[in-house]
Amino acid sequence: MKLSKRIQEVEYSAVRKLTPYADAAKARGIKIYELNIGAPDVEVPDVYFETFRDVKKGPLPYAHAQGLIELREATAKYYKNRGINFDAKDIYITDGASEALVFTFQTICDEGDQVLTTDPFYTNYRTVFQQLGIEVEAFKTDPKEGFALPEIEEIEKHINDKTVAILLSNPTNPTGALYSEEEIMRIVELAKKHDLYIVADEVYREFVYDGNDYKSFGEVQGIEDNLILLDSISKRFGACGARIGSIASKNPEIKDAINRLCNCRLAAPTLEQKAAAKLYGIDPSYLEEVNKEYQKRRDLIYEELIKIPGVTVEKPKGAFYVMPKLPVDDTEKFAIWLIENFQIDGETLMFAPAAGFFKNKEEGRQMVRLAFVLNVDDIRKSMRILREGIEAYARENE
Amino acid sequence: MKLSKRIQEVEYSAVRKLTPYADAAKARGIKIYELNIGAPDVEVPDVYFETFRDVKKGPLPYAHAQGLIELREATAKYYKNRGINFDAKDIYITDGASEALVFTFQTICDEGDQVLTTDPFYTNYRTVFQQLGIEVEAFKTDPKEGFALPEIEEIEKHINDKTVAILLSNPTNPTGALYSEEEIMRIVELAKKHDLYIVADEVYREFVYDGNDYKSFGEVQGIEDNLILLDSISKRFGACGARIGSIASKNPEIKDAINRLCNCRLAAPTLEQKAAAKLYGIDPSYLEEVNKEYQKRRDLIYEELIKIPGVTVEKPKGAFYVMPKLPVDDTEKFAIWLIENFQIDGETLMFAPAAGFFKNKEEGRQMVRLAFVLNVDDIRKSMRILREGIEAYARENE
Repeated sequence: MKLSKRIQEVEYSAVRKLTPYADAAKARGIKIYELNIGAPDVEVPDVYFETFRDVKKGPLPYAHAQGLIELREATAKYYKNRGINFDAKDIYITDGASEALVFTFQTICDEGDQVLTTDPFYTNYRTVFQQLGIEVEAFKTDPKEGFALPEIEEIEKHINDKTVAILLSNPTNPTGALYSEEEIMRIVELAKKHDLYIVADEVYREFVYDGNDYKSFGEVQGIEDNLILLDSISKRFGACGARIGSIASKNPEIKDAINRLCNCRLAAPTLEQKAAAKLYGIDPSYLEEVNKEYQKRRDLIYEELIKIPGVTVEKPKGAFYVMPKLPVDDTEKFAIWLIENFQIDGETLMFAPAAGFFKNKEEGRQMVRLAFVLNVDDIRKSMRILREGIEAYARENE
Repeated sequence: MKLSKRIQEVEYSAVRKLTPYADAAKARGIKIYELNIGAPDVEVPDVYFETFRDVKKGPLPYAHAQGLIELREATAKYYKNRGINFDAKDIYITDGASEALVFTFQTICDEGDQVLTTDPFYTNYRTVFQQLGIEVEAFKTDPKEGFALPEIEEIEKHINDKTVAILLSNPTNPTGALYSEEEIMRIVELAKKHDLYIVADEVYREFVYDGNDYKSFGEVQGIEDNLILLDSISKRFGACGARIGSIASKNPEIKDAINRLCNCRLAAPTLEQKAAAKLYGIDPSYLEEVNKEYQKRRDLIYEELIKIPGVTVEKPKGAFYVMPKLPVDDTEKFAIWLIENFQIDGETLMFAPAAGFFKNKEEGRQMVRLAFVLNVDDIRKSMRILREGIEAYARENE
């Protein structure tokens, strides 16, 4: 029977495709350190759970399609405190940033249109593009330069009459790059010059290390029609399972379109929205503490990685990812081998092979994305597994 | 700046498009009986809220992309008790039946393909088709026949080489029709003969009145490759705001495709899935009590409607909708007029104008969809508002 052409293009997400191997290993009693997916292990702040405990029994109608006003107001207040200029009426609550991505590109792209992004880029951008028949165009960012943006002329070479938008995550998934104000302004200049949308994925906004400044596209004046800002509570508050994200825009046509899509799927979950509103109201010290914890983890994973013979890596400046090159031919094969064949004390490691993060997958064959979402003890143990696993794999393949 | 061609086709949902008028009226202190949307007023069973109270503090990772195993097993058990043959591995948890619809049609249809359904049909099917560039083809169901399915030859006339699927809701939104086993088998015969998918939207499965039998497509043998069964806890347990639905299929290609789409958006909300699993475990007497309550409401709204001069209506057999014809030229204009200009004791009424439920909107201009989701007192009051509103509107337009 018929399957759509589009669906035949859609791949398994690179961060999830090893899940069946992991499930099988777990069933055999093996413990797996999961560095493959950016699901933080930190506790969600208490107010999240308290909100659910306080809910009164009764009917549970659909929430407002655009999102509960209390959550939109809380999000707007959070933005204002960071110099980001959006009101509650500019914000649309979505089922995670995942739905925000789909709604955004459904709104601005037809089949065959191009979106320009970095190479490598977040693998789930690819599956969204595949669903919608969008072509991805990408400019290289160099691991040796910490995956910084290239010069403006280099980026501009990739813009053509099919280009509709520049999509950027900052700090960056999967590389941990953090863009300076000057780099941000390169994108702004190009977007204005070529009349392109800027789709800014800023879900890792608080995960910035070493006291560096963070420049949000939302702080920039004069791009009100260009900017579509995507966000999520998943990383910020360790609440991936809540599935609450948002789209913010000042462009009236975009707002009307997103609002229609919100109406099509009726609403985001009511109680999760109530709880998310409370999360945005907590003391900023929570985010500072989380930041410190992640900086510690970043420091440790980097130190452990550079000790492993044959590994090359730059220290990431933001998010909670690091993308080292390993001394193996194909990190996907190595990943499966690790899960199936290698343990220390009954424990092994899962990471995301990096091929799925590159436009041309061959370029990522020797790289991996590690999410440092575990505590320092577990990171230490998992890096030992990686080091000894690399050695054992080399011996086996001699 | 560019908006996609697809998005320009997407309309506001007919059940939601009057929301801005209602919001304005509410801001002026007017109480509105909301019969426009199928959001039950019954209490969600206690276990739903208890689940949230029992959740331990901690991290909140993504759930399994396919859905929590406890919810898939609970859903499978619920199906087995009704003679519907799906295992936990055949079930994919979605963000409401809304996401289930999008995933299904993304999987089976390309742009320009046709889906065959009843006329009238659920308005949100239309917005899903518009998002995906799918053409809707529809066979008429007659209000005078209680919107029963036409003869098989009449349905078959609408099948052509662009037809991919037959989509049916049973009991039916928006008409309240309930299809007999014989009617169901007409669709089965056509699907097998023409190699079509059957997309069965059975979210109102328990809302069947007068002791009538219910025949699910899931009970039918021999259509394992054809059937895609959509479901939701929204209506069954009065939990619209939970946004938990599902897709069930035995077709391996469909399952693989839906699984990839599930992975693209990572997961459905974790706690809502835990709570939904508990809902499927409650004593069946809950559903029987709810059924009795809705039968009472159905009886009352029907009795009140037939008393209104100029109204024609058949008694619905299922779901919680009734679709009368009113003695006005355009029910959308009348709906707005009611909200803006007519109250009894500071109270007014909102319903869904029926035009948006018809392939050719003109055919529904004089009809409305009323959702009898309020208690009997409120239904009585709202029908008085409708009756006196019709009279006042006639006087004003003389």
